[in-house]
Amino acid sequence: MSTTDKYAFGMIGLGVMGRSLLLNMADHGFAVAGHDKDKGKVDSLNQEAGDRKAKGFLDVKEFIQNLSTPRAIMMLVPAGKPVDSVIEELTPLLDKGDILIDGGNSHFTDTNRRVEELEAKGLHFFGMGVSGGEEGARRGPSMMPGGDKDAYAVMKPIFEAIAAKVNGEPCVTYIGPGASGHFVKMVHNGIEYGIMQLLAETYEVMKKGLKLDGDAIGKIFTDWNNGRLQSFLLDITKDIFAYKAPGTNHLLLDDIKDEARAKGTGKWTSQSAMDLQAPIPTVDSAVEMRDLSKYKALRTKAAAIYSKGEDQTIEGNVDELLTALEQAFYFTMIISYSQGMHMLSLASAEYKYDLKLDEIAKIWRGGCIIRSKFLENIYGAYGKDKTLEHLLLDGDVAELVKGTLPGIRKVISSAVNAGIAIPAYAASLEYFDNFRNERMPSNLTQAQRDYFGAHTYELIGKEGTFHTQWAPEK
Amino acid sequence: MSTTDKYAFGMIGLGVMGRSLLLNMADHGFAVAGHDKDKGKVDSLNQEAGDRKAKGFLDVKEFIQNLSTPRAIMMLVPAGKPVDSVIEELTPLLDKGDILIDGGNSHFTDTNRRVEELEAKGLHFFGMGVSGGEEGARRGPSMMPGGDKDAYAVMKPIFEAIAAKVNGEPCVTYIGPGASGHFVKMVHNGIEYGIMQLLAETYEVMKKGLKLDGDAIGKIFTDWNNGRLQSFLLDITKDIFAYKAPGTNHLLLDDIKDEARAKGTGKWTSQSAMDLQAPIPTVDSAVEMRDLSKYKALRTKAAAIYSKGEDQTIEGNVDELLTALEQAFYFTMIISYSQGMHMLSLASAEYKYDLKLDEIAKIWRGGCIIRSKFLENIYGAYGKDKTLEHLLLDGDVAELVKGTLPGIRKVISSAVNAGIAIPAYAASLEYFDNFRNERMPSNLTQAQRDYFGAHTYELIGKEGTFHTQWAPEK
Repeated sequence: MSTTDKYAFGMIGLGVMGRSLLLNMADHGFAVAGHDKDKGKVDSLNQEAGDRKAKGFLDVKEFIQNLSTPRAIMMLVPAGKPVDSVIEELTPLLDKGDILIDGGNSHFTDTNRRVEELEAKGLHFFGMGVSGGEEGARRGPSMMPGGDKDAYAVMKPIFEAIAAKVNGEPCVTYIGPGASGHFVKMVHNGIEYGIMQLLAETYEVMKKGLKLDGDAIGKIFTDWNNGRLQSFLLDITKDIFAYKAPGTNHLLLDDIKDEARAKGTGKWTSQSAMDLQAPIPTVDSAVEMRDLSKYKALRTKAAAIYSKGEDQTIEGNVDELLTALEQAFYFTMIISYSQGMHMLSLASAEYKYDLKLDEIAKIWRGGCIIRSKFLENIYGAYGKDKTLEHLLLDGDVAELVKGTLPGIRKVISSAVNAGIAIPAYAASLEYFDNFRNERMPSNLTQAQRDYFGAHTYELIGKEGTFHTQWAPEK
Repeated sequence: MSTTDKYAFGMIGLGVMGRSLLLNMADHGFAVAGHDKDKGKVDSLNQEAGDRKAKGFLDVKEFIQNLSTPRAIMMLVPAGKPVDSVIEELTPLLDKGDILIDGGNSHFTDTNRRVEELEAKGLHFFGMGVSGGEEGARRGPSMMPGGDKDAYAVMKPIFEAIAAKVNGEPCVTYIGPGASGHFVKMVHNGIEYGIMQLLAETYEVMKKGLKLDGDAIGKIFTDWNNGRLQSFLLDITKDIFAYKAPGTNHLLLDDIKDEARAKGTGKWTSQSAMDLQAPIPTVDSAVEMRDLSKYKALRTKAAAIYSKGEDQTIEGNVDELLTALEQAFYFTMIISYSQGMHMLSLASAEYKYDLKLDEIAKIWRGGCIIRSKFLENIYGAYGKDKTLEHLLLDGDVAELVKGTLPGIRKVISSAVNAGIAIPAYAASLEYFDNFRNERMPSNLTQAQRDYFGAHTYELIGKEGTFHTQWAPEK
């Protein structure tokens, strides 16, 4: 078999995501090979492949031998130990210059370690974020590959062919060195957590505050999705409000337990943000509320003490309140992206990723879970000023934000007075009100720290640090 | 020299905290020895010791040889590598059964590692939280020792003698095994971060919303500190509002930069809470705001865009607003402690610390930074029900909380409408409103996750997990 007969791309892990990506590549005319230890999955690929040049191998050596060199091999296996196990098994079979791509949601610090270990062996390691779920993988995902820039050239034509397209442009670009691809995907997921929590709170306000039924809520989400709020997450939410429990006349949604699960990428985003001193309260709030939702038994007991007989209706004209709510949701959506982009810019400086924020906004416009109409605005803002320090400082974005402020203030104060919880809404506004606060009250924090711990403080307009004996003489 | 002439306790690191603790011990009649590599610090101790049995040694071997066995040696050196360096230097000089105590703010995961390493060598390692600053160390701190229970007997009389006393009872108790002492101290600091942020926001509301000057604010803090809000942090805050910049007629506070610093324990609390799925939004908010305060240049630019000419006055009767503010602050204080205690109970189960929450509340009543009148209520609640799952479920606490709700809702809605940032206030109320929410909107989150990622969901009243093809047929 000559090199030209070999397969251009290999996939390890033929679960739903791996198989879908491979078939997507085959659809675009690439000859691709897959490997899995599970014979059933190998057979599935071979059956589904049909006339396409996609072949599954049960034997890993045979799989490796049939790839053209330098080999480009993606792993789609669960994050954590499985990734290390595959690397350990594979490394002795590879040649210098081969490229391994981790397409899962690995923690970026694991990716850092693997990049180092494999570069030392002459191999290239890529951490690549892939967003879009099964449907995205099969028809066009958004992809965030990070690693050695030269090595990227090998995969570039394949990835650009299979990626989602927006205005004919592929939703994939080289992100940066090291673990930058996984880092950017992590922040993508953090933004996703934030917007999902905001949608849940919007539903809460409409249901408990405005006493709207599922059909009415579904209609509003549908209307919104035809306007500036258009987004994948709103799109699927409107579908959820159209889905009746089989054989009934009520929403399946009503039967689902209110205990949210999580796979960890939101938490990682919050924890990493704190290491970077990047404030992302909207994401943090989403993580906190997924956690709080878990304590159903406690919440039930607390409700018996604190919530008995409460009505929670928000008084006022419903149409006016819905107008405010649309503004409020748009505001929080803008804040969610703003926090995420700020975190990326701080990470780029700290970890030397040299991220192109305009390019990242560009490839998030299609294929991924947080795609939305507003990403065009973000792309525009960073496109016209590549050194923009913060999205909220862009003039066009500022005009949009200003237009939403009456709505967000109205919604939060109404919900607070009605006893309806809107934590991510509140976190978003509070972030904004302090972000635009030239004089925060943090001088008091500094004085307190100096008082009890002699941690010193700084003075306006003076160099150096100072310490005071604050306690009055006794 | 006979064993009986030897020193009962040793201290490594004779900085302000180490020296103060040693002199405190000597005041109580214990013979104590100190060691530092800095001759100046050794000399200082010897000078300050006077007639007391406190002796400084420059030579570490001489120091070790002069301690009675089993030796009890505390390190008060900066967290991180310095702790490991001291351990490395000391270990060969010690005998089996000797006890090493890390009195600094080490990360509890480092303490776990050190406990394991030293137990393997037959040594006992204690992680001990010490709170109270210099004044506390010298006159009576609150101490949180965790480690081998039997070994604790050696230090117990000394620690109980030097600890702060409340109603004659010492503010120290054996916390639990392993790193539990450092864990509890970390959460103590998290609560401290929360309350400090809440005080800063209270100041912000009084200054910008009620347009009160420093003297008026100081008077209110003083009044409050004579009532149910009495606490160390409020006490020092009132002092800060009485301190004029030298040679001027304005507060020194006004000259201090509004960029808060942090040494990391608040961040660790938030990050660890997320690992435990313990929601502590008030603490998280404090961490976020210390971080946000750092971006002064960005905030200044944002203020020019969003805050020009804004007045922020809260309309209404000032006395009524101050009454609401007192309630609001009491509410958030209760929530801060509630979140911290909940985190401790979750950590106790997860890490098998077997924490006694009533004992922890008891030793926090004096000596430490978060001491307050309300800690008596917490001690009472956990004292009468040692299995209390959450402080907010205690009947007496519930009555207090209910009485504050009009105030907290008034303050937040007023601040939101006036554009004044009160992030930790809002985070506290939102936590409460969802904690007492029997039906959170997290069912939507689960439906969305199942829609785009096939993550499955659970149904009310049914076993198992389910998956749905949510998308409408096209």
